[in-house]
Amino acid sequence: MSLKIKVGIVGAAGYTGGELLRILVHHPEVDIVFANSKSNAGNPVWQVHRDLLGDTDLCFSSNLDSSVDVLFLCLGHGDSLKFIDENEVYFKSAKFKIIDLSQDFRLLKRNTHAYTGSFVYGLPELNRDEIKNAKNVANPGCFATCIQLALLPLAKAGLLKDDVHLTATTGSTGAGQKPTDTTHFSWRANNLSVYKAFEHQHLKEINQSLVQLQPLFSNALNFVPYRGDFTRGIIANLHLKTDLTHEKAVELYEDYYAKHPFTFLSAQNPDLKQVVNTNKGFLYLEKHGDYLLILSILDNLLKGASGQAVQNMNLMFGLEEKQGLKLKGTGF
Amino acid sequence: MSLKIKVGIVGAAGYTGGELLRILVHHPEVDIVFANSKSNAGNPVWQVHRDLLGDTDLCFSSNLDSSVDVLFLCLGHGDSLKFIDENEVYFKSAKFKIIDLSQDFRLLKRNTHAYTGSFVYGLPELNRDEIKNAKNVANPGCFATCIQLALLPLAKAGLLKDDVHLTATTGSTGAGQKPTDTTHFSWRANNLSVYKAFEHQHLKEINQSLVQLQPLFSNALNFVPYRGDFTRGIIANLHLKTDLTHEKAVELYEDYYAKHPFTFLSAQNPDLKQVVNTNKGFLYLEKHGDYLLILSILDNLLKGASGQAVQNMNLMFGLEEKQGLKLKGTGF
Amino acid sequence: MSLKIKVGIVGAAGYTGGELLRILVHHPEVDIVFANSKSNAGNPVWQVHRDLLGDTDLCFSSNLDSSVDVLFLCLGHGDSLKFIDENEVYFKSAKFKIIDLSQDFRLLKRNTHAYTGSFVYGLPELNRDEIKNAKNVANPGCFATCIQLALLPLAKAGLLKDDVHLTATTGSTGAGQKPTDTTHFSWRANNLSVYKAFEHQHLKEINQSLVQLQPLFSNALNFVPYRGDFTRGIIANLHLKTDLTHEKAVELYEDYYAKHPFTFLSAQNPDLKQVVNTNKGFLYLEKHGDYLLILSILDNLLKGASGQAVQNMNLMFGLEEKQGLKLKGTGF
Amino acid sequence: MSLKIKVGIVGAAGYTGGELLRILVHHPEVDIVFANSKSNAGNPVWQVHRDLLGDTDLCFSSNLDSSVDVLFLCLGHGDSLKFIDENEVYFKSAKFKIIDLSQDFRLLKRNTHAYTGSFVYGLPELNRDEIKNAKNVANPGCFATCIQLALLPLAKAGLLKDDVHLTATTGSTGAGQKPTDTTHFSWRANNLSVYKAFEHQHLKEINQSLVQLQPLFSNALNFVPYRGDFTRGIIANLHLKTDLTHEKAVELYEDYYAKHPFTFLSAQNPDLKQVVNTNKGFLYLEKHGDYLLILSILDNLLKGASGQAVQNMNLMFGLEEKQGLKLKGTGF
Repeated sequence: MSLKIKVGIVGAAGYTGGELLRILVHHPEVDIVFANSKSNAGNPVWQVHRDLLGDTDLCFSSNLDSSVDVLFLCLGHGDSLKFIDENEVYFKSAKFKIIDLSQDFRLLKRNTHAYTGSFVYGLPELNRDEIKNAKNVANPGCFATCIQLALLPLAKAGLLKDDVHLTATTGSTGAGQKPTDTTHFSWRANNLSVYKAFEHQHLKEINQSLVQLQPLFSNALNFVPYRGDFTRGIIANLHLKTDLTHEKAVELYEDYYAKHPFTFLSAQNPDLKQVVNTNKGFLYLEKHGDYLLILSILDNLLKGASGQAVQNMNLMFGLEEKQGLKLKGTGF
Repeated sequence: MSLKIKVGIVGAAGYTGGELLRILVHHPEVDIVFANSKSNAGNPVWQVHRDLLGDTDLCFSSNLDSSVDVLFLCLGHGDSLKFIDENEVYFKSAKFKIIDLSQDFRLLKRNTHAYTGSFVYGLPELNRDEIKNAKNVANPGCFATCIQLALLPLAKAGLLKDDVHLTATTGSTGAGQKPTDTTHFSWRANNLSVYKAFEHQHLKEINQSLVQLQPLFSNALNFVPYRGDFTRGIIANLHLKTDLTHEKAVELYEDYYAKHPFTFLSAQNPDLKQVVNTNKGFLYLEKHGDYLLILSILDNLLKGASGQAVQNMNLMFGLEEKQGLKLKGTGF
Repeated sequence: MSLKIKVGIVGAAGYTGGELLRILVHHPEVDIVFANSKSNAGNPVWQVHRDLLGDTDLCFSSNLDSSVDVLFLCLGHGDSLKFIDENEVYFKSAKFKIIDLSQDFRLLKRNTHAYTGSFVYGLPELNRDEIKNAKNVANPGCFATCIQLALLPLAKAGLLKDDVHLTATTGSTGAGQKPTDTTHFSWRANNLSVYKAFEHQHLKEINQSLVQLQPLFSNALNFVPYRGDFTRGIIANLHLKTDLTHEKAVELYEDYYAKHPFTFLSAQNPDLKQVVNTNKGFLYLEKHGDYLLILSILDNLLKGASGQAVQNMNLMFGLEEKQGLKLKGTGF
Repeated sequence: MSLKIKVGIVGAAGYTGGELLRILVHHPEVDIVFANSKSNAGNPVWQVHRDLLGDTDLCFSSNLDSSVDVLFLCLGHGDSLKFIDENEVYFKSAKFKIIDLSQDFRLLKRNTHAYTGSFVYGLPELNRDEIKNAKNVANPGCFATCIQLALLPLAKAGLLKDDVHLTATTGSTGAGQKPTDTTHFSWRANNLSVYKAFEHQHLKEINQSLVQLQPLFSNALNFVPYRGDFTRGIIANLHLKTDLTHEKAVELYEDYYAKHPFTFLSAQNPDLKQVVNTNKGFLYLEKHGDYLLILSILDNLLKGASGQAVQNMNLMFGLEEKQGLKLKGTGF
């Protein structure tokens, strides 16, 4: 008799849906009950996520099965809300938990829905206990995760007392699978460009988390996001003024992350590829004069999206946090 | 008093149109009279071809000026024909020459139009004298140019007596500027894939040229085209059985290209980037047992498209063949 | 009580050694007893393979422990032989099995050593039963694996009756970790180049396997290898004349690989990245006139090296063949 | 009779030497008298800079000819000084001008040598008049040029009153042609990494120029340099607090650069590739709250090195500043 967690996925043909499938087909405690995609219903998932040939015979379906234990919503921003609105009966009668990968329920001021109840902000390094008990989880954004991991220890210690200057570069998979001008290979290859400087939408959830730990935090986060010419990963550099010595800062970060199995303070200056295809986040600290420099790296599709979603699932169902997430990195 | 060649460009907002502009803004014997693009009419060309900021104040226009000396058609395949059909008055009354970059008039069996007269196949290494006297020129395809350069000397000597086995890889700019699944950065980066194997449309014009030089040529060209994970350039490897020694083959190729200023037989095994951002084609020969191996490289947007178009213009107007085409390569 | 397989690795600081560590740290049936590297002895493996931070506390050592069950030799070509020569006592007294990733023992005419006994050529799709009973295995080359997978079904059916024309492109990790002119980023990025055309050293082991299945095989393998501008993966296209219809060819390949868990005939034209970071090989067939076109892809560090080495280990120790090799591909 | 400028190049086999050759072989007012490289003496330059095949028959030489009008030193940092030290007679008797691309003479406190006399810091946008009259010029660093272009207008207006926060990413050609761990393709592809944070050596020359324009400038330049996964180009983002409105800032920058033919304020958010293979620098401004954001892009080998060196030569010899530098960009 199977006691595995029964999983349903909505938006299974997209990037985060595909990445979730790549993880879950090998997760020892999971049965994928359905992978919902209207436009691909009836076709094997490997016709869309073509690397999955040989890994699973699962087909996309247009059905929504209520018998699942957890439902992953892998939809675009705004579309999770709409999907729930449009499926009143399904959600109202649901006994399943929900993990939503969109930004629709991340902010406290709109983190609930009449048909589903409220969502816990699903950053385990911030809210692990709440996640364990959550019915629903709003999975954080990729930039948001990368930047929060860099700042949470300072916020918890009440040490964010200066504007934070931060630049971060993301891989192209962060832009989704619809071909656009800024994901055109001829344009993006060997290129870098800035977008949404100082105004990226993830600043809201980052601020919310920092205030959760340091209620009087009110400094600016001067965030310059870049489109990178690689497919996976985010690397962020942040600096701010602080009295902390390098030694004390290292201690602070090591303490904060001691019990978190995916986030590591590196003694070596890291490069982006060290975390690609893993659920890990690496941090690194340098002190220069009054300024503390923090580097933070993760894989935007894993720790920044689908991997973290599975981490949350593990926590919500009482599994070991790393179950199914001991992934071989690419290294190169 | 200006005695410069007055140039008009139709389809000036696309890839080959932009590349033509990049060349012509610095061409010492050219005045660009108009750069036609309906959707961008009135805007500076650097709003589309953004690297041209500082190089020209030219704006796109929706007009067609009859006073030009030469008209470049930088349109998609099938669209040149349609454009001529739709502009009967403009073309019938025209005194200008036409250089068409589409494939619409490359084949002898349909190389003419009632409004324009006939087109000469514009490969200078094959038809230089005809081009000099041509009213209209059909500019060859990029793969077609790369492969013909590799085979013309053999064809002229009547030495194509075996099936030719050839694989060639093209940069993403060959696929045009419309974003598609196969030009999506997330897919194309670090990837290679085969398409249209044995059936690429350029085989027709290649065969036509080989038969022009070696009328009884009837062997197969087994052509496997690849989509490459770079933006510019084509590299082709070809092999076939031949009695020619390496020494004789070198002599044959050197003789053939002795008076062609852009095509060179290299004594060193070349790599693709050696010709990127230039109008040059490099060839290289090895003999292995009965087989002659030929490598051929060029930049698909230059010698494979807009650069060759300017080379043809130079020939048609009696200019030095390299005028405006002494381009600094990127090297890296 | 641990009944896990005790593993030792020699050359653990190199590319294939690192890739082996990436796999084995998560392999449920393995204990890594030592990771030998003189120059790094005493240091954590994550100081060299920096993505392993958080995955293992293992340190490199300069010792050689005889208590292991299996020893992986991850050394350069020629160095395995030398290493065995120089460690007579260690090898003569050994009870452990050996999996050698170099080319030193792949050819039948020199597949044995006085201190170790003989080596079985470790291509499971060719020699699975022999591997199961082998004391020592010589792991195949990366190009060699990719090309053999494409040809074995034909050879077994005795259908290789024409010269085979093949072009294959490899990622930069195939060239090892020592920086050289042809692995310099400034040169290799956005570039392609041919090397060792018709003369690649892997041709010998490929021929040997083809003759094993089709003893009278004597045609040429015209192999043009390319250096690719990506880090992982090999894609090969092969064509040859054959009477086989497409339908019969598909049947032949499906039959041949029906019981091999890592090699799949794809119904879709594959792209290289579909197998990156997995131990899988994908094949694809098209028929054009008399010619059969075969595409073959794999990850040169996995199915082409360390992954196949673990697959061989699984077979040699009676484990399920896919144990520890259900790897999440990168997809992008 | 030729009145062309007679040019000698020392270090002609390196990256900046090769780039200089790529420009000068097409410069209408230049005769290259010698390209010095001991190790390559006697060989054609295209055997090293292989893209130059067909562009020039020049060979490397080991001689130093005193009859040149200008000598370019394309040597590593520290090596220009050493080279002059070791060639006392050559330099003491010299009537030629010198353009040094190393950092050896950029700083006022050590900008002179007994054998050559003093060097003017060769940033035309800062010191055009001094350059015109200079005997010797110290060509600025690549990061230094990119960052100074972004800050000079503010410094001249005395408006640098806050710490400047800046991140900049450079192409791999900035690291020179010797293969190293951080230029290894397998490592650098699809990767980003920080180095020399807050301590890059170019900070000294940047500070010197800012103080030249704004003598009381004493704020910090918090500079985080990245190694980029592309070959050419630098993109920098800078922000600092200022009272300037966006409108006034635009006016300030447009005024400052009105008479400089290579530096442009873009009205569009630029991407790195817009300047690749050109001598142009593009700037772009946004205002966010109290902060002014400045983006700056250039090609590290051209405006950041050899192109600027030619620009300086043009100024030193009274030529039109853009002579030989109207380069076709790659666009893609």
